[in-house]
Amino acid sequence: MFIGINLENCSSIMWTRACTKLAANLLINGILVCEAGCILENLSSFLENEGFIMPLDLGAKGSCQIGGNVSTNAGGLRFIRYGSLHGTILGIEAVLANGTVLDMLGTLRKDNTGYDLKHLFIGSEGTLGIVTKVSILTPPKLASTNIAFLACKDFISCQKLLLGAKRALGEVLSAFEFMDSHSMDLVLSHLDGVRSPLPASLYNFYILIETTGSDESHDKMKLEAFLLQSMEEGLILDGVIAQDMNQSASFWRVREGISEASVKLGAVYKYDLSLPINDLYGIVEEMRTRLGKAAIVIGYGHLGDGNLHLNIMTTRYDSDILAQMEPFVYEWTAKHKGSISAEHGLGLMKADKIHYSKPPETVHLMGNIKKLLDPSGILNPYKVLPQSSLLDH
Amino acid sequence: MFIGINLENCSSIMWTRACTKLAANLLINGILVCEAGCILENLSSFLENEGFIMPLDLGAKGSCQIGGNVSTNAGGLRFIRYGSLHGTILGIEAVLANGTVLDMLGTLRKDNTGYDLKHLFIGSEGTLGIVTKVSILTPPKLASTNIAFLACKDFISCQKLLLGAKRALGEVLSAFEFMDSHSMDLVLSHLDGVRSPLPASLYNFYILIETTGSDESHDKMKLEAFLLQSMEEGLILDGVIAQDMNQSASFWRVREGISEASVKLGAVYKYDLSLPINDLYGIVEEMRTRLGKAAIVIGYGHLGDGNLHLNIMTTRYDSDILAQMEPFVYEWTAKHKGSISAEHGLGLMKADKIHYSKPPETVHLMGNIKKLLDPSGILNPYKVLPQSSLLDH
Repeated sequence: MFIGINLENCSSIMWTRACTKLAANLLINGILVCEAGCILENLSSFLENEGFIMPLDLGAKGSCQIGGNVSTNAGGLRFIRYGSLHGTILGIEAVLANGTVLDMLGTLRKDNTGYDLKHLFIGSEGTLGIVTKVSILTPPKLASTNIAFLACKDFISCQKLLLGAKRALGEVLSAFEFMDSHSMDLVLSHLDGVRSPLPASLYNFYILIETTGSDESHDKMKLEAFLLQSMEEGLILDGVIAQDMNQSASFWRVREGISEASVKLGAVYKYDLSLPINDLYGIVEEMRTRLGKAAIVIGYGHLGDGNLHLNIMTTRYDSDILAQMEPFVYEWTAKHKGSISAEHGLGLMKADKIHYSKPPETVHLMGNIKKLLDPSGILNPYKVLPQSSLLDH
Repeated sequence: MFIGINLENCSSIMWTRACTKLAANLLINGILVCEAGCILENLSSFLENEGFIMPLDLGAKGSCQIGGNVSTNAGGLRFIRYGSLHGTILGIEAVLANGTVLDMLGTLRKDNTGYDLKHLFIGSEGTLGIVTKVSILTPPKLASTNIAFLACKDFISCQKLLLGAKRALGEVLSAFEFMDSHSMDLVLSHLDGVRSPLPASLYNFYILIETTGSDESHDKMKLEAFLLQSMEEGLILDGVIAQDMNQSASFWRVREGISEASVKLGAVYKYDLSLPINDLYGIVEEMRTRLGKAAIVIGYGHLGDGNLHLNIMTTRYDSDILAQMEPFVYEWTAKHKGSISAEHGLGLMKADKIHYSKPPETVHLMGNIKKLLDPSGILNPYKVLPQSSLLDH
């Protein structure tokens, strides 16, 4: 953990105090300022009491820290609605390799005085500096949330449904997640107490749509009208709208359980790809054909953002199987102008794979910026960039 | 003009072709890729035909180019809804001082492979590289727009109205602009054919609220309910909702005419400040007291984003009056933790003023990045950074 080392014992009292101190600012502007060690879920709870929400939400919210979220440019479930942290983070404090504390902890929505350096630290995984404080724009908590769980016959229908949802649900759409039938089977087989909202194995694809808005009756009307029309057009084969909080939670449980279920089979190889939406499921099908009975291949993720999670399960880790997956998956992604890491970052394992998604001139400049900010290479070494980019040219 | 030098003759046919080529991508994902020389208004028109809109809109749309918008991190009228260009620009192509072409023209919503270098070029006013192509996420064009023009008795009421609008109008709020009575008087006195939607000179502050949503009846209901409640609470003294497109345009004409009316009196000094909202109008009142009868002082702007435009009109440019304004306005802004340039940038005139909004460690790092990318200082020299930050230390 490169984040929050000196904040490890940051108790819930500490973050409450830190937040309360800034509550007046928060109430007028919806801007939260906190230390990097605050747990995402604690920040969410604090904000909900004040009538706001965090603009990001992810499965690991109970343990991840906001400083790590910022350093890794975390994506997650609300991305389709509230966008990237590059848009919602208003400021940070960061400590450089030489000990300099950079105060970029602005709380203003707009500030065009000089280069906006905070963006260098968002998503650079702690290799340029350690994020120690964060200021973030938080949206108001809206009154109404609706969730629908739907079945589609093919991936083309999923795409058309997404396009329709962006228009018909417009301003209230807050999640558009998809999973294939293989993901559904995996969750149902390996997680106790998880039930499918719709008859399982009958359909090829499942979609979870969430809306969030300020008026419950308006939102319901929009959602129902959209679902009715999509059903008439044949885009949806079956569907159900959650009737209460428990049912909503059970729908999300299916989607969020996939990652947990993936590790139950022995070995799991995980890929986190960004792809143009029309190509997004192609890699899943090709990988399934390629590996045959040697593996279970599932595809799911944040379809609304063009982000596929491709998980491949085998009984044990095996270099022969790995050789069938890589570099194929990276080459395929590069050929389709995708990104080999949509939201998980490059870390240690993929630092040498950066060239699949970034041209050499750009990697070269990244290396120069790393050398400028951390000439001795002491911050999170061997991560993000290939060592070759750090040599003197 | 540092943007679009080699694209000056970029005709409407050129941009149409460039856009049409990518229309398929646009239709699925709402992503527009174009050359930097495209005029903002032309892009808007192209997109509207395809059912999308540009996430930014500003008074100069008929002449400004998207490359310049990106290089200056333009804000404008839709910022409250769609946020900063750091969130909506997905990729750029930029040419560095040494001639290297950096291809960062991704069209993916998510891409965490290495440092996100495009942000260095957004808002650095062409001093680090020349933006030559842009890829931008465009929101769907929604069916319904409503505009209300309101009067408030004091600035506290404007603030409370903003907080209420963010909650009650939530997802449909697309503009929250304010102007004081002095701005209104100026527009009515100096622009032909502009009429006030409400009795002028009767009220101290005017607010323009715009909503944009996917269902006209829902949006109207939300807006009317919100206005009724705000009137009952005494936050609004008077108000009118535009009944048709012409009326909407006439409401916007009042707000957008202020800048034009400001130059009719002789000399105008313009300040573009970001301030915590509760302090935002204080500088206008202090300046008015300070200058007395020597000047007309008006305050207006994007209240929803904490962005004040402070214009000071005198019969002629006068160094004695200037000395009463500066450095006072910058010191006041710094004391209240504001920014001396919310959206206009620093350019040539304010490069030496950067220390009012940024601490020395941050300016020092900006200087080092400038020297790394443009060691001979050939790109837009003397802009943005003080020369002292470019010396060797």
